[in-house]
Amino acid sequence: MDKLMQDANRFVSDMVEGLVLAHPDFYEKVEGVNVVKRKDGVSGKVGLVSGGGSGHEPAHAGFIGEGMLSAAVCGEVFTSPTPDMVLEGIKAADGGKGVLLVVKNYAGDVMNFDMAKELAEMEGIEVDTVVVNDDIAIKKESDRRGVAGTVFVHKVAGAAAQEGRSLSEVKAVAEKVISRVRSMGMALSPCYMPESGKPGFELHPDEMEIGIGIHGEKGVERKAIAPVEDIVRELVDRLTNEVTDKKIALMLNGMGGTPISELYLTYKYVHEQLIAKGYDIVRPYVGNYMTSLEMHGFSLTLLPVDDEILGLLDAPTKAIGFHS
Amino acid sequence: MDKLMQDANRFVSDMVEGLVLAHPDFYEKVEGVNVVKRKDGVSGKVGLVSGGGSGHEPAHAGFIGEGMLSAAVCGEVFTSPTPDMVLEGIKAADGGKGVLLVVKNYAGDVMNFDMAKELAEMEGIEVDTVVVNDDIAIKKESDRRGVAGTVFVHKVAGAAAQEGRSLSEVKAVAEKVISRVRSMGMALSPCYMPESGKPGFELHPDEMEIGIGIHGEKGVERKAIAPVEDIVRELVDRLTNEVTDKKIALMLNGMGGTPISELYLTYKYVHEQLIAKGYDIVRPYVGNYMTSLEMHGFSLTLLPVDDEILGLLDAPTKAIGFHS
Repeated sequence: MDKLMQDANRFVSDMVEGLVLAHPDFYEKVEGVNVVKRKDGVSGKVGLVSGGGSGHEPAHAGFIGEGMLSAAVCGEVFTSPTPDMVLEGIKAADGGKGVLLVVKNYAGDVMNFDMAKELAEMEGIEVDTVVVNDDIAIKKESDRRGVAGTVFVHKVAGAAAQEGRSLSEVKAVAEKVISRVRSMGMALSPCYMPESGKPGFELHPDEMEIGIGIHGEKGVERKAIAPVEDIVRELVDRLTNEVTDKKIALMLNGMGGTPISELYLTYKYVHEQLIAKGYDIVRPYVGNYMTSLEMHGFSLTLLPVDDEILGLLDAPTKAIGFHS
Repeated sequence: MDKLMQDANRFVSDMVEGLVLAHPDFYEKVEGVNVVKRKDGVSGKVGLVSGGGSGHEPAHAGFIGEGMLSAAVCGEVFTSPTPDMVLEGIKAADGGKGVLLVVKNYAGDVMNFDMAKELAEMEGIEVDTVVVNDDIAIKKESDRRGVAGTVFVHKVAGAAAQEGRSLSEVKAVAEKVISRVRSMGMALSPCYMPESGKPGFELHPDEMEIGIGIHGEKGVERKAIAPVEDIVRELVDRLTNEVTDKKIALMLNGMGGTPISELYLTYKYVHEQLIAKGYDIVRPYVGNYMTSLEMHGFSLTLLPVDDEILGLLDAPTKAIGFHS
């Protein structure tokens, strides 16, 4: 198995343990479950919980910290966490002002986070939910998956919570981001499941996948590998069909196995093509934010910004995995 | 070719261009050459220059910024920059108080940085040099390569320069770090040269290399892939043979294609084994710092610290690629 690991069954628990050991003053693990929370707590503010299957690191635990998430629920690799686990996350994030759940649009996540919401409400915690569905590779809007755009939701909603806004206000600005943000990704190689060692899809070395998901799913189209300028054009053209506001924040997100050199190289072409189309990239983010194990590829996310969103994007955060 | 790129001949120049486009207020490219400098300048402080072949991103340009490097010289992939390029780096870093060159111990780098030093001195710039040789995979000390420990030299010397120390004082603390820091790395897979598409070494999927360099060199030993605990034990045992001071900063460095999940998973075993041996890991750094294109693997770096080094490690830096 071409992975650094001890035992596939402990892939997630070992990773969570390592994360907390590396940052003991910053993170705290909830006893007995792969849920991580801010050690400094969230008293008097709206709590923010995200998570889902693991394999997307630094998402989601890496976005815990003042100004972003309060707790992250780390399911097994590409597997939705149970409602009980999410409930632990909600309790860990509860600072007395309610908790917002940021859920990616997958049937399992939506169902399990919803059940956890009900359980938490029975325990007297006010909970609300937003569902992110930024992946335009899927045509039907209700089926669109939540991918890297989720990180912008974490950042903006987290900054709003830190400002002291109410649960309904934090939810409103999260919904505003969700209504605007659009993403699409590609891969030169698949990722491999820790347990089976199997790839998410079989791909010839000369081929690439356009419109991949973040759970090892193949893309919506398979093509011969092209020069990066052509790959970028395909993603930029599809995204700019949907995103017509020209003042944008942009995320060029590595899929986990992509070296930073290739991300910056790719950014040159992204920048040139968007500028040529009249876009004003007021905040570019280049790095690994929402990954898919060791997949080699990238996704592009466009978020039209107004002054409110921009201010919240620029607000400081202590989250270890979020770099501007 | 399984890389995101346009043209192998423009791999480095496209990457440098993308980096500067993504952070236009922060970086400035020197006209006509792949040298990057701090846009805010270094007036009245000692300047710090590093670099060498590219392919090690975020090293070295990612470590430019207040509190770390003043300029980085980006040679072609795994190829020493010419003396003329290094001279441009020195000029870009000159703030009137002299310039320190942080060179990794490779014959080409040592020679070309030395020639550039002479050229700069002829132009009236005071220049001094330190050479990092932290890789204990090589037995003979004079042949030891500079690897991830170089990043600790950048951080400590950069903070000392920022404090306003003189060139000889900055050099002295850099030498102190070099005398203490030791590293060793391993890989599950090779990296591939952009031009030829060839791997640095051929490796069966069930094998790994122990004691790799950062230029695609194979390791000093080839073995069957083992559980990560055993891999870590081998590196930890070799490093703790050389590093006997117990209060250490530690860098667990990804080689470029290693997902963060595996780095944190690996950290759990590193932490446990060093604690069991009586070490006190006062500052753990986990991430991609000194990479080798898309190589999948990691290196471990141990740096015994005193109050001076610790203070300089903890000093703030604006460098985009350095995260604690």
